[in-house]
This record gives sequence, C-alpha cells and structure tokens, in this order.
Amino acid sequence: MSELGTGMAADIAEQPAVFARLLDGQAGAVATIAAEIARRRPRHAIFTARGTSDHAALYAAYLTEIRLGIPAGLASPSAITVYGARPDLRDCLVVGVSQSGGSPDLGEVVRVAREQGALTLAVTNAPGSPLAEAAELHIDLDAGPERAIAATKTYTAELLALLMLIEGVRAPGGALPTDEREALSRLPQLAEETLRDSTAVEIADRYRFAARIVTTGRGYAYPTAREAALKLMETSYLPALAFSGADLLHGPLAMADPDVPVLAIVGAGPGGRSMRDVLARVGERRADLVVIGPDRDLNGADLNGAALRIPTPAVDERYAALLDILPLQRLALALALGRGENPDAPRGLKKVTSTL
Amino acid sequence: MSELGTGMAADIAEQPAVFARLLDGQAGAVATIAAEIARRRPRHAIFTARGTSDHAALYAAYLTEIRLGIPAGLASPSAITVYGARPDLRDCLVVGVSQSGGSPDLGEVVRVAREQGALTLAVTNAPGSPLAEAAELHIDLDAGPERAIAATKTYTAELLALLMLIEGVRAPGGALPTDEREALSRLPQLAEETLRDSTAVEIADRYRFAARIVTTGRGYAYPTAREAALKLMETSYLPALAFSGADLLHGPLAMADPDVPVLAIVGAGPGGRSMRDVLARVGERRADLVVIGPDRDLNGADLNGAALRIPTPAVDERYAALLDILPLQRLALALALGRGENPDAPRGLKKVTSTL
Repeated sequence: MSELGTGMAADIAEQPAVFARLLDGQAGAVATIAAEIARRRPRHAIFTARGTSDHAALYAAYLTEIRLGIPAGLASPSAITVYGARPDLRDCLVVGVSQSGGSPDLGEVVRVAREQGALTLAVTNAPGSPLAEAAELHIDLDAGPERAIAATKTYTAELLALLMLIEGVRAPGGALPTDEREALSRLPQLAEETLRDSTAVEIADRYRFAARIVTTGRGYAYPTAREAALKLMETSYLPALAFSGADLLHGPLAMADPDVPVLAIVGAGPGGRSMRDVLARVGERRADLVVIGPDRDLNGADLNGAALRIPTPAVDERYAALLDILPLQRLALALALGRGENPDAPRGLKKVTSTL
Repeated sequence: MSELGTGMAADIAEQPAVFARLLDGQAGAVATIAAEIARRRPRHAIFTARGTSDHAALYAAYLTEIRLGIPAGLASPSAITVYGARPDLRDCLVVGVSQSGGSPDLGEVVRVAREQGALTLAVTNAPGSPLAEAAELHIDLDAGPERAIAATKTYTAELLALLMLIEGVRAPGGALPTDEREALSRLPQLAEETLRDSTAVEIADRYRFAARIVTTGRGYAYPTAREAALKLMETSYLPALAFSGADLLHGPLAMADPDVPVLAIVGAGPGGRSMRDVLARVGERRADLVVIGPDRDLNGADLNGAALRIPTPAVDERYAALLDILPLQRLALALALGRGENPDAPRGLKKVTSTL
C-alpha cells in the first residue's frame, strides 16, 4: 500500500458500483435461489457468521422475521464445532455469511446443518470457498477483492444480497415486485450522494482524543451500530461499545457522561421513533451525542442538545442500513488516519480467521 | 443503604443459599414444566431477554442446542414490538427471561408468541409480573428481593433454573437422573468455596486506572464473559468489551496491547480447549491477561505469561458458568468501591427498564 488508508478508502468509494453490479448482475441468480427457498417453505431460519458478516446476518434475521414472518436467529458456531451439537434441522434454513468463505467453523456449521436436514445457503465473496462448497445454495457477492483488512464493501454487499434474497422469497417466482425493484435501483445513486457528504470526516477530528465511544440503534439500525463499533475498534483501536437502544438502558447507560461520545443511528421509521426515550436518557447523562439519520424532524424526538448530525437519506429503514454505515466507515478511516494508524492493515489481524 | 456496596455484597454472598433454595424448593415445579415441554416436542426454541438476563438466555440457548439437539437462538424483541412482526411460531418454544418480569417489551413478545402458536415460558423472580402472567408456563426463581440495581443473585438463579429445566427435558417425566442431581447438589458448596477465595478482590486493585477492559470466553463461558463485562460497565463505568474467543480474532484483537487487561474465562472442557489459539494471539499482543478457571494444566495451552489466575472449580463447563461469574461479580464490586462509586445504585439506571 503506497499511502496509509488508500486501500480502505478505495473499498469504501467502490460501494455504489458494487451495489449496481449486484443489482444488475446477480438479480436473476438471487431470484432463482429465493424461489427455491420459498418452495421449500422453511419453518425457521438460522444465520451464522463472524465479525462484520455477523452484523449482516443480524440484519437478515430482522428482515426474515419482519418481512417473511419466519422466526430467525443467530447461531453460535461453537455449539456445533466445539461441543458437537447435532440439532434436528429439518424445516430449517441455515445461512452462512462470510466474505472469504474461509472460516473453518462456518464451513463446518453449514456442513453439519446440511447433514442434519437443513436447507443451506452460503453468501460469500468467494464462489470456490469451503463455505460456498459446503452449502446447497450459494450467492456470490461479486464485490471484487477487498483491499483493506477491515471489511467495508463486502459488508454492504452482504446486506444488499440478503435484502434482495429475502424480498425475493416474498415474491412469486423470486422476482421482485416493481416498486421494490425501483426502490433498490435508487440505492447506488443514494450511496453515491451519501458518500459525497463529508460531515463524518469533520466529526472524526472531534474524537481524536476520545478514550471510548458508544454506538446505538434499534431494529434495522442496530446492525449499523454494531458494525460502526467494530470498524472503530479494528482501525483506530478505540474501545467502541454497541448497544441496542433498549439494552443501553439496561446497565451500560451508567457509563455515559460528557466524556463519552454516543453515535446514535436514528432512522425515519419505527426503529428511529423507538429511540426517542433512549436519546432523552442519553441527553440526561449529558453524553456527547451525534445522530446519524435523515436531516429532518425526528418524529418530534427531543434530542437534548445533540448539536451534531451526520445526514443520511430519508428512506425506509430496510434501505437505511445500506446507507447509514457509509459515513461511519469514513469516520473510522479518518479517525484511524488522524491517530497515525494504518487502517489497511490493523495490527494483529488477518483477513481470514481460522478458529474452529 | 448505610455503606457503599453493602447491598451488592449481600446479594453476591447469598448465592449459595439461592442455589440451595432453588434445588430444594423448585425441583418439583421445574420437573413438571420440563415434562410438559418434552411432551409438546418443540422443533426449535427462541429465548428473549434484556441486559443481564440476556446472558442467562444465551447460556440456555447453548444448553438447548447441545443437550437437547433443538436449534435455539436469541430473538430481538424489536422485530415484534417495534416493527409488528407476527412470525409463525407453531412448534416453537419461546422463553422470556427477566428478574423483574416487568419490561413491557418482553411481556409483549411472549404475549404475541403465544397468540402465534408458540409454547411460552417465563423465567422470573416475580410470579405476579406481567411477563409471568403472559406466558403459559412460569418458573419462579425464588431468589428473594435483590438489594442492588446491578443483578447478581438473580443472574445465577436464572442460570440454575434454566439448567434444571433443560436437563429435565432430557429426562423421562422431567425428573433429573441421579448423577445430574448429585452434580447439581454440590453447587451450593462449590459456590461457597468459590466466594471464599479473594484473588478477584486483590486483582481489582490492578485495574484501578484501567481505561478499558476486554473479556472473552467460548461456548458456555461466553455468557460469563458478557455478564462480567456488563457488571464492570454498570458498577465501575469502565468500558468493558466482551467477545467470544473466535470473534475476538475477527477484528477486536487489534485493540489489545499492554494497556488492555484481558479477562479470559477458560474452562476445563471443550470450550476452554478451544481458547488455546485465542490466548496465544492475545499473548502475542502482550495484553495483560488474567485467566479465570480451574487451577491446573490448561490442556497444554501456552498462556504466554498470563501471570494471574482467578481459580474456580474444575467442573463440567455447564456448571462452570454458575461459578466462574462469582469472582467476577466480586471484582466488579471491589473495583467500583476502589473508584469511589456506589455499585448499589449506579448513576442513570433503574431496576426495571421500560422500553417498548
């Protein structure tokens, strides 16, 4: 890498193109898989992933419950890989999500799940990977090689692929209805516009000497809070704690004080509205609040002096998850550079992690 | 409260008696519920909880998968309470875990789950609570009123009740086999002995000026890592980050350096063995490692100079979850007192949290 952070910057900038490529190039393949899943009528769904991909899996679990009415949860690979659990998985859809497809534990979970009767799907950026090979079905993210170790474009590609898939399962034959297709087709342009705004980069300066940071969001915005925290940890080595808005009030709120920056992802829908009390309680503790969300009246929420906002488009919260993370990736990159770190190659990390 | 922390200290000290009361007084009631669950043959299980109880739920999800072969996961209440999801829950066991039974979101999840065809169970310390009323089945923890806001004895009571329940589902008629009953009957004594050791209190001094802390464990020890982190956050306001051993290697490891204390829960079984690589990688980063676990050869793990150990009994990892947390509760209490905080009434917190 010639200059610090150029790899991560290039990965981030490429996201509108990755969205466009997925929407144009993979729509047919995803629709076929969606139709097959619909045909098999799973009674419940289990998502399994690690690190960044775990946040895409969490998003997909919300979508599955809310949009398909199919109960969904995240599985801990260790029940199967470490303790040898062999659950009965007939009627179950098991989805492994991983950019590299190379983590042995996920491959093992999907292999066992298939033996145990599950319908298995791998979502990866690596068609020939062990995870892709282990699953009955595979979606290729086609996001191109990621330059930095910290995942950015593969994360949003995972979100979009899972969104296309799950909306497809709702639709006859897996093909998206016109309004959904139109809404999705606007995402590359919206991502482009979101990345053009540089508020997040300016705010990075404010956190130069922060000792810790809290991120929060509810529903579809919670994966964004988790992923933002992970990016900050792996590139700036800043301890970043992510909480669902509700869990924040169950204990961790005690930590918040004027020395603690709180990044709250507040959408224009039900998840954003449900953050109203959370924002008020964070305000009472006089934490340094920055709201990421549409630049408009927050459904009457009293922001208690949240002076700062990182504006993102006012879209359905399902789509917001693909856009709100973009300025937060840029924030992590800018903060890492501001601290003299190399976000392309964080100390102690490898691109493929090989725990069993 | 007359003196700082006396409430939390009393709650912690009471745990052996709470275990004994649960084992003696509730065994019959739990066995009846276990038999009913076995009779209904759920195909999958969903646990729902907040804060500390979420960690008991996570423990129960591992147990359910490993011991019953029933796939299990944690549900986000917001899918139902915020977005109005109405998943098809026939063949599903939905378990709400909450000491107060008073969080409106959990009550709502269980109420909806019951309408949607699930077999519902509430595990609470409050038989007349909305959550207990909403569920078809109820287990009373009978742990007595908790003095401090930070939950301690209700957490371990939840673990034990869920363990008794899940082992009961395996057994004909819900009654535990003799060896299991004998193993459980030793827990009050083991808890007593574990609480007698004061290594954790001595180590608290070492963390007086720590700016952050990392906790880690795998499998049955992962809920312990999560709960230890939450206790440290809510009583000492110390940012504490919990990771499964595997997830730690997926990014957050970059944060670890000699200024970061790492508390690793390392049991005497498969979960502990699977921490070997994690400990080695943490050692490479020269983090300040403390191992919580049995005082004996760690299956040959190279601890890379982990000079410190908080000794806990060498028992099956299922039981270790009930014991390893005890010194960590004392550590949180001692650290809060050392920093001049009042762990009985953390700033900004309430005992019952009422997010919907």
